[in-house]
Amino acid sequence: MDEVNVIVLAAGQGTRMKSDRPKVLHEIGNAPLVVHAIASAEPLSPARLVVVTGHGAAEVGRAVAAHAPDAILVEQRERKGTGHAVMQTRAALEGARGDAIVLYGDTPFIRTDTLREMRAARERHAVVVLGFEAAEPGRYGRLVTTGETLDRIVEFKDATDEERAITLCNSGVICADAGLLFDLLDDVTDDNAAGELYLTDIVGLARAAGRSCGYVTCDEAETLGINSRPELAAAEDAFQARARQAAMEAGATLIAPGTVFLSRDTALGRDCVVEPNVVFGPGVTVAPGARIRAFSHLEGASVGPGATIGPFARLRPGARLEENVHVGNFVEIKKAEIGAGAKVNHLTYIGDAAIGARTNVGAGTITCNYDGVFKHRTEIGADVFVGSNTMLVAPVRIGDGAMTATGTVVTQDVPEGAMAVGRARAEIKPGFARRFFDKLRAARAAGGKG
Amino acid sequence: MDEVNVIVLAAGQGTRMKSDRPKVLHEIGNAPLVVHAIASAEPLSPARLVVVTGHGAAEVGRAVAAHAPDAILVEQRERKGTGHAVMQTRAALEGARGDAIVLYGDTPFIRTDTLREMRAARERHAVVVLGFEAAEPGRYGRLVTTGETLDRIVEFKDATDEERAITLCNSGVICADAGLLFDLLDDVTDDNAAGELYLTDIVGLARAAGRSCGYVTCDEAETLGINSRPELAAAEDAFQARARQAAMEAGATLIAPGTVFLSRDTALGRDCVVEPNVVFGPGVTVAPGARIRAFSHLEGASVGPGATIGPFARLRPGARLEENVHVGNFVEIKKAEIGAGAKVNHLTYIGDAAIGARTNVGAGTITCNYDGVFKHRTEIGADVFVGSNTMLVAPVRIGDGAMTATGTVVTQDVPEGAMAVGRARAEIKPGFARRFFDKLRAARAAGGKG
Amino acid sequence: MDEVNVIVLAAGQGTRMKSDRPKVLHEIGNAPLVVHAIASAEPLSPARLVVVTGHGAAEVGRAVAAHAPDAILVEQRERKGTGHAVMQTRAALEGARGDAIVLYGDTPFIRTDTLREMRAARERHAVVVLGFEAAEPGRYGRLVTTGETLDRIVEFKDATDEERAITLCNSGVICADAGLLFDLLDDVTDDNAAGELYLTDIVGLARAAGRSCGYVTCDEAETLGINSRPELAAAEDAFQARARQAAMEAGATLIAPGTVFLSRDTALGRDCVVEPNVVFGPGVTVAPGARIRAFSHLEGASVGPGATIGPFARLRPGARLEENVHVGNFVEIKKAEIGAGAKVNHLTYIGDAAIGARTNVGAGTITCNYDGVFKHRTEIGADVFVGSNTMLVAPVRIGDGAMTATGTVVTQDVPEGAMAVGRARAEIKPGFARRFFDKLRAARAAGGKG
Repeated sequence: MDEVNVIVLAAGQGTRMKSDRPKVLHEIGNAPLVVHAIASAEPLSPARLVVVTGHGAAEVGRAVAAHAPDAILVEQRERKGTGHAVMQTRAALEGARGDAIVLYGDTPFIRTDTLREMRAARERHAVVVLGFEAAEPGRYGRLVTTGETLDRIVEFKDATDEERAITLCNSGVICADAGLLFDLLDDVTDDNAAGELYLTDIVGLARAAGRSCGYVTCDEAETLGINSRPELAAAEDAFQARARQAAMEAGATLIAPGTVFLSRDTALGRDCVVEPNVVFGPGVTVAPGARIRAFSHLEGASVGPGATIGPFARLRPGARLEENVHVGNFVEIKKAEIGAGAKVNHLTYIGDAAIGARTNVGAGTITCNYDGVFKHRTEIGADVFVGSNTMLVAPVRIGDGAMTATGTVVTQDVPEGAMAVGRARAEIKPGFARRFFDKLRAARAAGGKG
Repeated sequence: MDEVNVIVLAAGQGTRMKSDRPKVLHEIGNAPLVVHAIASAEPLSPARLVVVTGHGAAEVGRAVAAHAPDAILVEQRERKGTGHAVMQTRAALEGARGDAIVLYGDTPFIRTDTLREMRAARERHAVVVLGFEAAEPGRYGRLVTTGETLDRIVEFKDATDEERAITLCNSGVICADAGLLFDLLDDVTDDNAAGELYLTDIVGLARAAGRSCGYVTCDEAETLGINSRPELAAAEDAFQARARQAAMEAGATLIAPGTVFLSRDTALGRDCVVEPNVVFGPGVTVAPGARIRAFSHLEGASVGPGATIGPFARLRPGARLEENVHVGNFVEIKKAEIGAGAKVNHLTYIGDAAIGARTNVGAGTITCNYDGVFKHRTEIGADVFVGSNTMLVAPVRIGDGAMTATGTVVTQDVPEGAMAVGRARAEIKPGFARRFFDKLRAARAAGGKG
Repeated sequence: MDEVNVIVLAAGQGTRMKSDRPKVLHEIGNAPLVVHAIASAEPLSPARLVVVTGHGAAEVGRAVAAHAPDAILVEQRERKGTGHAVMQTRAALEGARGDAIVLYGDTPFIRTDTLREMRAARERHAVVVLGFEAAEPGRYGRLVTTGETLDRIVEFKDATDEERAITLCNSGVICADAGLLFDLLDDVTDDNAAGELYLTDIVGLARAAGRSCGYVTCDEAETLGINSRPELAAAEDAFQARARQAAMEAGATLIAPGTVFLSRDTALGRDCVVEPNVVFGPGVTVAPGARIRAFSHLEGASVGPGATIGPFARLRPGARLEENVHVGNFVEIKKAEIGAGAKVNHLTYIGDAAIGARTNVGAGTITCNYDGVFKHRTEIGADVFVGSNTMLVAPVRIGDGAMTATGTVVTQDVPEGAMAVGRARAEIKPGFARRFFDKLRAARAAGGKG
């Protein structure tokens, strides 16, 4: 098959979002809408990917580049319609061969298979439009067809009553011969009420030039465009429903799927169990047989086979847990490798650290990784027993099989098999508490403050 | 327009709630049902607001007074019907001019605009009743009408087959001339199966006296009354759905609206983002551009522009966060002002305190604000570095630009630019851990206990 | 009524679950499917309970024994159909009198009352089959009936068009005279496409032998069988909806029922309030008037009257809280009795301990219950004031009315009324912080690392 080029229109402002953020940067599954649109075309291995920015061009450009560094960014400085937007890509697509597909940055759900069908239909047609059977056609443009042939696209306001009765509607997505696309656009005019150049006009022009136009249909849900926050929430909902279903069908147990939030790239292994109320931010991988307990929050983390996380655990970017690790409640792990079978069970912060296999980290342990200006690393060996409330002032190393006594502030390295102990010996003052509280209560009775 | 007086009937027990709490004190959006009913009339600026209590009168009275200190409380000692309940307010409304509106403490969703429509209809009628088209009219009373005129209200059990076919039902809400209301009530009798005085009887009496009666209709959802816990849960659900929709339409992003719980008075700024699983208790204000991360719980708190809260953060009453503050996981803030750009990121309790701008509070820090009898304040300046696991024994002050060393118990003030350090120097005992665990494991092998 | 014997078929693999775990061990309401099936028959007080295992026999056997120690386990080594499975129980039911009911380990929702109806129908019939009116009969077997009599069960693939039009379908559940059951099974053959022995064939054989067969119908929801993870999730959903409704009807307030997860055995008292996002694991009892705040997680715990838990609290197995106890945020309680009115409000781990009435446990307190090999207990008396960040190194006792100073590591017993204090006195180093940060910032400016 010929090469394919992809154009993503991402210039719109999205006034109805009531937001200072460009519309295409609002997120679904923790990825911007424009990234979803781009990702749907990625499996086609586009020769060139051109994104047309406009409103918030710099910000949109950065988000696109973060996901697709090779994307060509083109700015549409005036907003004069979809045809005008596509024309901005002419230079970027100079000499491009094969197909050009036009997608929309606010339309995140087009399936890759749908795009493949459009390319297949290009064997028979110069221009292929993506249509859908609308449950409520409303003011959508209509596809006027004869058998497999698309005669023209008619805007709702220009449509006859007969044409308005058509329920096959225009999604806006087009696949055409790349060279032909720009030739046709040269003839599009702004001779309409809005004074804009409509991409859809190329269908009529192609037919007038004796070229064949066709169409492919998809499920209406794929064509969902986002124009307001309630629509964004509904789209997120639809995304989550699909992602949860896919995870379950692949062999993960989601006890209460409706309470589990997944990201575009969440990977859950077979027989892993996810309890209610778990949030997966971007970049999480969970190995087979792991259990993510209720009220856990994971981002940029990997969880090894058989590991148990939570409840109330937070794994932040760079947390790498090997097999059978236990991370318990009110524990935060950031940029840290935790060795096989290690346990970090209660009220602990581990950041910028490595912990060896089978090591037990006591409750209240903190890696003091920040001195106010720099971050430093903590290295803990295997089979270490870290006593409760140990403060590990980084940079610091604890050798294999060593231990720290409860309440110790560790500021120097602890050799293998050694113990670090640093605390004031507690003194018992008989009767002190009785006298102390008697005095306080007397002060309260007198209306004073100690 | 004439002045308006509002009567709220709140005497019922609500046996079907299976509760020791009076029915009207069960809550929706963290406010008692009776407060919702009162609040719907508040924008009309009532001249007098009279609440009829009965079951749990003292408790209901306190809740009403907490919300509406000027409300007049009247106790209905016997329960003899709605007409009897309204008659208890006669003395409280002595000399009242203009309208009297009768509302119900267990009917929280009547819209203010609906009440305004009823007042407008009073221009043409002496008595105006609120009706609704019932999806399932069942045993509701029916409104018998001729054009714009209300002929009478017929109870279901007294209705003919023809009348039962009517779907326009009685909500119970009435707006009448205040003086006329009590004159008509004088003629209401308990000559019915229940032996009660029905407020609805005033319609027939008014017509018999040659006065005009009219009606206004509202959505059935507004007339929802609460009689059982499942109905309470359904009403909460309806309340939340409307509150979430309103928040989104005002420009907040709710990533998973169905998992965000709002209170009657929650205020979310434009472009603020609320992640899944966030609970807003009463009295929370979130400024534009702030982000409330997953699993956060806020009550009586204000969050400044650009601030980030959570995940797993709890803001309690009196937490005041200025712009760009970061509050991280497993952090509790109570009665404390946190200055612009300050960070409290991990496992910390800040209560009865003030923290200056740009100050960094290390993990495990605790303001020890309670001595067993009194609470004391902690004052931390700007640009302070509070080391991990610092205990701040209040009352205590830390000056600008000061620092505390990890693990220090601070019991005296720390001047500007100074450091407080207090900890035992850790001693390293070579080989100790190896011998210690060898001994313990031997004890375990011997079946003993160390 | 005659005695009853219960056979539960639990040998299946459940390929569509895509799981290494036997199908009947997947859980709903935190109990394995097979336990739900067994529990539905328990109120009938079966004389013998026989469970037929197969796939994962050892694992299934352990789960059955944990719930029903008297159950007789029989292994079906070959999988040759339901009739073959029941035949494996012949020896176990040797000499059994009265009824035998056949249930399925992957069909958890049959109601006890339905089984009672089947037993009652046995007065009139030798064999009674449980049928249901299917909304979509699809490929289910059909019950061919004449009045109250069941003529035969016809498999979908063997059914005529006329028979396929029947909507009364076969659930598979059968109640028969125990002796007759095995006599009939002797005559069942594997003369069918699958080469299996079908339990349902006994109906035709019984009729041929001149015995009466009858049927009882139940709601289709009861007959729900679990074959895939999405079906498991749907079943969990159905279970939760019923459990929440039952809890509310019994007088508990669930503010957002859809966000509360219950176990098969969760017991919630009258007027207790459960806020949004609470997870009840197995074995939890909540007394009347207690409040479980948002984001709490309870397992194997009891909560006394008037107690308040959470938000963000975790009660683990063996937590026993008496009346009016307060457990606050980021607190974990395990195997511990907490006395009336005691408070454990912030960032604390209490494990293997007892705490007396009215005792106040400060923020950051940890019971250091584990020495790396053994667990030890902490005993704290009544009216004790445990200062913030106290480390209680078990085994240790704190007497009534005693106190510990902030930051103390307690390794010896503290007598009644005494205070334990152990900490380094903080030293103030004037100007140190200023110089320290100046140096660090200079290092950063120079590109170094301190």
